[in-house]
Amino acid sequence: MKTHHIGIIMNGVTGRMGANQHLARSIMAIREQGGVRLSPAETIMPEPLLVGRNEAKLQALSSAHAGLPYTTDLQQALANADYPLYFDAQTTPRRYDAVREAIAAGKHIYCEKPTATTSEEGMELHHMAEKAGIKHGVVQDKLWLPGLLKLKYLIDTGFFGRIFAVRGEFGYWVFTGENQPAQRPSWNYRKDEGGGIILDMFCHWRYVVDNLFGNVTGLSAMGAIHLPDRVDEQGQRYTCDAEDAAYGTFATDEGVICHFNSSWCVRVRRDDLLTLQVDGTHGSAVAGLREVYIQHDSMTPKPVWNPDIPSPIDYYGSWSLTPTNQAYDNAFKAQWELFLRHLVCDEPFKWNLREGAKGVQLAELGYASWDKRAWVDVPAL
Amino acid sequence: MKTHHIGIIMNGVTGRMGANQHLARSIMAIREQGGVRLSPAETIMPEPLLVGRNEAKLQALSSAHAGLPYTTDLQQALANADYPLYFDAQTTPRRYDAVREAIAAGKHIYCEKPTATTSEEGMELHHMAEKAGIKHGVVQDKLWLPGLLKLKYLIDTGFFGRIFAVRGEFGYWVFTGENQPAQRPSWNYRKDEGGGIILDMFCHWRYVVDNLFGNVTGLSAMGAIHLPDRVDEQGQRYTCDAEDAAYGTFATDEGVICHFNSSWCVRVRRDDLLTLQVDGTHGSAVAGLREVYIQHDSMTPKPVWNPDIPSPIDYYGSWSLTPTNQAYDNAFKAQWELFLRHLVCDEPFKWNLREGAKGVQLAELGYASWDKRAWVDVPAL
Amino acid sequence: MKTHHIGIIMNGVTGRMGANQHLARSIMAIREQGGVRLSPAETIMPEPLLVGRNEAKLQALSSAHAGLPYTTDLQQALANADYPLYFDAQTTPRRYDAVREAIAAGKHIYCEKPTATTSEEGMELHHMAEKAGIKHGVVQDKLWLPGLLKLKYLIDTGFFGRIFAVRGEFGYWVFTGENQPAQRPSWNYRKDEGGGIILDMFCHWRYVVDNLFGNVTGLSAMGAIHLPDRVDEQGQRYTCDAEDAAYGTFATDEGVICHFNSSWCVRVRRDDLLTLQVDGTHGSAVAGLREVYIQHDSMTPKPVWNPDIPSPIDYYGSWSLTPTNQAYDNAFKAQWELFLRHLVCDEPFKWNLREGAKGVQLAELGYASWDKRAWVDVPAL
Amino acid sequence: MKTHHIGIIMNGVTGRMGANQHLARSIMAIREQGGVRLSPAETIMPEPLLVGRNEAKLQALSSAHAGLPYTTDLQQALANADYPLYFDAQTTPRRYDAVREAIAAGKHIYCEKPTATTSEEGMELHHMAEKAGIKHGVVQDKLWLPGLLKLKYLIDTGFFGRIFAVRGEFGYWVFTGENQPAQRPSWNYRKDEGGGIILDMFCHWRYVVDNLFGNVTGLSAMGAIHLPDRVDEQGQRYTCDAEDAAYGTFATDEGVICHFNSSWCVRVRRDDLLTLQVDGTHGSAVAGLREVYIQHDSMTPKPVWNPDIPSPIDYYGSWSLTPTNQAYDNAFKAQWELFLRHLVCDEPFKWNLREGAKGVQLAELGYASWDKRAWVDVPAL
Repeated sequence: MKTHHIGIIMNGVTGRMGANQHLARSIMAIREQGGVRLSPAETIMPEPLLVGRNEAKLQALSSAHAGLPYTTDLQQALANADYPLYFDAQTTPRRYDAVREAIAAGKHIYCEKPTATTSEEGMELHHMAEKAGIKHGVVQDKLWLPGLLKLKYLIDTGFFGRIFAVRGEFGYWVFTGENQPAQRPSWNYRKDEGGGIILDMFCHWRYVVDNLFGNVTGLSAMGAIHLPDRVDEQGQRYTCDAEDAAYGTFATDEGVICHFNSSWCVRVRRDDLLTLQVDGTHGSAVAGLREVYIQHDSMTPKPVWNPDIPSPIDYYGSWSLTPTNQAYDNAFKAQWELFLRHLVCDEPFKWNLREGAKGVQLAELGYASWDKRAWVDVPAL
Repeated sequence: MKTHHIGIIMNGVTGRMGANQHLARSIMAIREQGGVRLSPAETIMPEPLLVGRNEAKLQALSSAHAGLPYTTDLQQALANADYPLYFDAQTTPRRYDAVREAIAAGKHIYCEKPTATTSEEGMELHHMAEKAGIKHGVVQDKLWLPGLLKLKYLIDTGFFGRIFAVRGEFGYWVFTGENQPAQRPSWNYRKDEGGGIILDMFCHWRYVVDNLFGNVTGLSAMGAIHLPDRVDEQGQRYTCDAEDAAYGTFATDEGVICHFNSSWCVRVRRDDLLTLQVDGTHGSAVAGLREVYIQHDSMTPKPVWNPDIPSPIDYYGSWSLTPTNQAYDNAFKAQWELFLRHLVCDEPFKWNLREGAKGVQLAELGYASWDKRAWVDVPAL
Repeated sequence: MKTHHIGIIMNGVTGRMGANQHLARSIMAIREQGGVRLSPAETIMPEPLLVGRNEAKLQALSSAHAGLPYTTDLQQALANADYPLYFDAQTTPRRYDAVREAIAAGKHIYCEKPTATTSEEGMELHHMAEKAGIKHGVVQDKLWLPGLLKLKYLIDTGFFGRIFAVRGEFGYWVFTGENQPAQRPSWNYRKDEGGGIILDMFCHWRYVVDNLFGNVTGLSAMGAIHLPDRVDEQGQRYTCDAEDAAYGTFATDEGVICHFNSSWCVRVRRDDLLTLQVDGTHGSAVAGLREVYIQHDSMTPKPVWNPDIPSPIDYYGSWSLTPTNQAYDNAFKAQWELFLRHLVCDEPFKWNLREGAKGVQLAELGYASWDKRAWVDVPAL
Repeated sequence: MKTHHIGIIMNGVTGRMGANQHLARSIMAIREQGGVRLSPAETIMPEPLLVGRNEAKLQALSSAHAGLPYTTDLQQALANADYPLYFDAQTTPRRYDAVREAIAAGKHIYCEKPTATTSEEGMELHHMAEKAGIKHGVVQDKLWLPGLLKLKYLIDTGFFGRIFAVRGEFGYWVFTGENQPAQRPSWNYRKDEGGGIILDMFCHWRYVVDNLFGNVTGLSAMGAIHLPDRVDEQGQRYTCDAEDAAYGTFATDEGVICHFNSSWCVRVRRDDLLTLQVDGTHGSAVAGLREVYIQHDSMTPKPVWNPDIPSPIDYYGSWSLTPTNQAYDNAFKAQWELFLRHLVCDEPFKWNLREGAKGVQLAELGYASWDKRAWVDVPAL
């Protein structure tokens, strides 16, 4: 039995996302299952070193996870040759500098999105990494959601015929904090703290569209601050200056129109918190986080407009739920495993820093389109 | 008992819309119920004269309706003083000239939309009508759909708090005619025959938005020909050069963002063929043609993003169906009754030729926005 | 990390209510969660001293709770400066004297309701406490029931419009003990042992109404002994001389009519053991212990009286269950935490001995109204 | 075959109640079934003469019912010996005079409630009728509701053991007319036009209680005008000066406490528009208009108060629906048949003018109790 122990500097795992999705549900889950099994005789075992600024939080996290090593000294960690991989889940404004340092220290890179606050900086990281000859990857978790994997299956098996239109609906009602606590942090609604749903979600829409429906070539976007004031974690009313909703239309080089509504102030009457309706010549699908409903041409009813009577067609019942024919791992963990295999076995892994920079680019261009009130093209990076 | 007999020249009723909605379900239905009852002692009785170009069709229509009088001679009809009202449901390109003639003949006007092929001509009709001092109205039937009346009730009673966003989804799958007959005529997909979903539907969206969510001040629109060829009524394949889908965002002077998708190539997974989701600070609603689902703030769940498990929230079950507390008439008939009351009793009727021209304007500007790839403002008419 | 250790003399915790709700589910639960967290660096830790008359029971209770200290000597406990707070859950007739002593000993006070057997004595305790400058509170647990907290949310967010009527239904079938054991103690049905549902429940209705629907200004009440004899814990038949049902109507200074039926001899066909139906101009709600059903104006059907056919309206289905958007603590524990914060941080706490006396007053006036067969006013205390 | 043709002067049948319940569903239904069958060889056939003040309405009613004779001349009708029975369904203020005249003319009497506007006048009619030796009856339709007949069955068969308490809930939401039409006439909310729910409903509660639960001996009642202004049939806002809700407690000579809430501004979360919960030593029942749910002692659960968990008992599921073992006629028709048998065959009929006066008395005393803010006794009539 050969085991590849891969030391990972995990920076920023004291945050909610880092602690839950990356440490607990990904790295610890991989450790608990005995590593990433490459063959009956060979596995990869991640060996995390927790890094952060708050020692108390690190200590608590460490004891929650069987005494994992931790440090507040990033430089020392980067100097430690036992840890060839640097992972970053800090808040966005801190990422660029830390990743630069890690590349300079010769570490491989895996990090959260947005990779930087501008696509220029994002591409700079990409070029540095390429020059340094290290391996790099960026979290693009939604691609491994069970619902999107099922959708990918439908695309790959030709279910849709030619796809021509996609309707994305993302979001839910985030309470204002006035009469009951908000379920998202107040910085989401503050521009100077990195808030705004365009910045948050367009990074995701970029890789979702690029990977499933063709490369984005142009977009028209508009943001809105629908709820102009909210109450923060300390019970203080504040003015929101970052958009809480975005209406975006993306065109792709495969001729698909993708219209996505993203909102933190929408009440959900649809199959899931994120739904993608994909229409093709031979069939359509509505994918949620876990389930996908389909309507093939052969199942498509022919409706008649007659408001004088209740519709004789059940517009939900005429769709079919696709089966769950396999167990799906947590989406973050699934991508972690692929990246670790890429690292150790050199398996292909396309979701690198360039792809990360593309996500930042789409957010940038989204703001530009909103500002110009016009379509903008998406230049190659 | 006083009865106001109102002679109506009904031009273009041999078409599907004119025959079904205007003649059978509106005018004949009013006649069968004994007219429009103004008081126990006073009613209005419409007296239709069918006009068209195809005598055989007119004859058939006449005998289907108890021998109503008919003629192919429009000029003679317009010269007949027994018929003070001219109604037009011809194909769009013929409307402008016919309505001009009718105004010149001193007739009151009631007509289908689009009132003309350009807003300039639409406004010309309006000015002529005003100068002539006659009464005029334009069909805006969707306002009297039961679902939209229920939505209006919610708006009027303050259910929503402040409304800030509307998502409109209109459309259904129109078969291409290749393997099974199409359910819409082929001219819909031919530019030079007046086809195109922007021209067809933006006239509706104009009055729906103006009447419910504030006057439209600007829009960004994009059309697409998703299915580039179809098979016509004669079984001939033809190339579609009119858009079969439109993605439009409308801004209003009340600060509401209205995003409407209109498509003849979308499979329907929603409550109805047309749905309007309206989000407000205190509650949301999804209106279909007949029914409206609501979710008040007090019913709004607080979702958590966890794709690892099935959602613990039923995103449909957390909405309530509003009750049907009154009987609703056919939408066309309801507007006919209001116009007849306007004619006889001078009751207010705001849906006149100017409003009709506004609908044409929005379609024009939709094409302009698509062409410029930019937002366009909506000037006052 | 700063910890405020608060010694609490818990007198009367050998009774069912004291042992379960106050000791196990409140104080011990607070201890197990690490105290009341004021900030990441500061907590309050309650340190109970069990006091009672039956040493064996105390010993058993102590060993059930990790060896908590206990004593049968109240005087000695009151003399102990390590215990600045006195809590009383004894039977009602013993409370007045014990609380007096505790105030005289300089202790802060937290106690069960009724605080005394007359409002005069209740107010005496209040004045003594105020004069002594100590902090004091009275258990008003129903305010922290999840159902009533949800109801409060609806009131605070303006769901009801103007509230004008409340129907309270409390109670369930208490078996007579004849053929199966009764589930309430026999003293509840004996006047001289403090029995009677008016005394028991009107204390609750006072603070529920005062806090949610306006201050009670007058009432009409009638009691009844519906089941005149029962069988006690020893299997002996006895005559009930305390009322087992009460019919009370309360008027408030906000113009709300609150009619409450309280009964130990009613079979339950409603949503819960306690339900409050609240009717307002814009909506209604029926709150139970944990859940609340609502019907907004927009959901309100228009019924027609036609006994010849089954009702076309589902009178339950037309209501919506409000969501549970937060975790709710045990109601007693929730109030304990607030009182401990009041004690340590001087946060406001309005449910003091004066409020406790008001509850006793309403019970007194309930008996007076029954006796006089007339409405009685509620004077200020 | 012997047929007793009974001529009936039906006065006031142009009103909604008279036309629907008495003429169409009772008298005409009896005629259509071939009369009241006394034996295979003997029937009673009612022969109505329609009387009213509006000839047009009478004519319309007559033609809707196969040309029944009608007249606007009451005196002439009363002088006609072919019509030995006078029926009155006029508005309340007109009833006393008309019934007096009819008695003076020697007619038998059957009439709607309230029989008069004061119990004194009501008793006067009774004494006149007795003195004249004619037969007389008053509509008490609720007694023949299927639900109340099933309840009567439970009482008669000893299901309840000893009954001690009844909770009546009557009412529903009557829209104000502001945003949607009200479903009751505006005079209901105007004192000087005979409005007020006490006057309307206490007449019913009197005979329901007297017949099912013992003679009413005292009551405490309170009315309220919960919605102080409404919009009338002409769209005019008006001030309501008649109570729209009443809270009444009735005591009976059988020791039963009957608490009835009656309201036109309550949203319905219960089994039916009228429900009577009857509690007895051996079982309880909740009767609606048509159905009755029961819970026998043997089905009674023993609830535990534990708000920390959802109730383990389904408080609805633990009741059983009683079966419908017979077909039930319209309640009005059922009583008509009994009165006709009384008239022709002298079968007993206890619901006479004295009973009608008792209903008026209870309403009078309801107002008196509200005014005095005290219980009032019910003297014998």
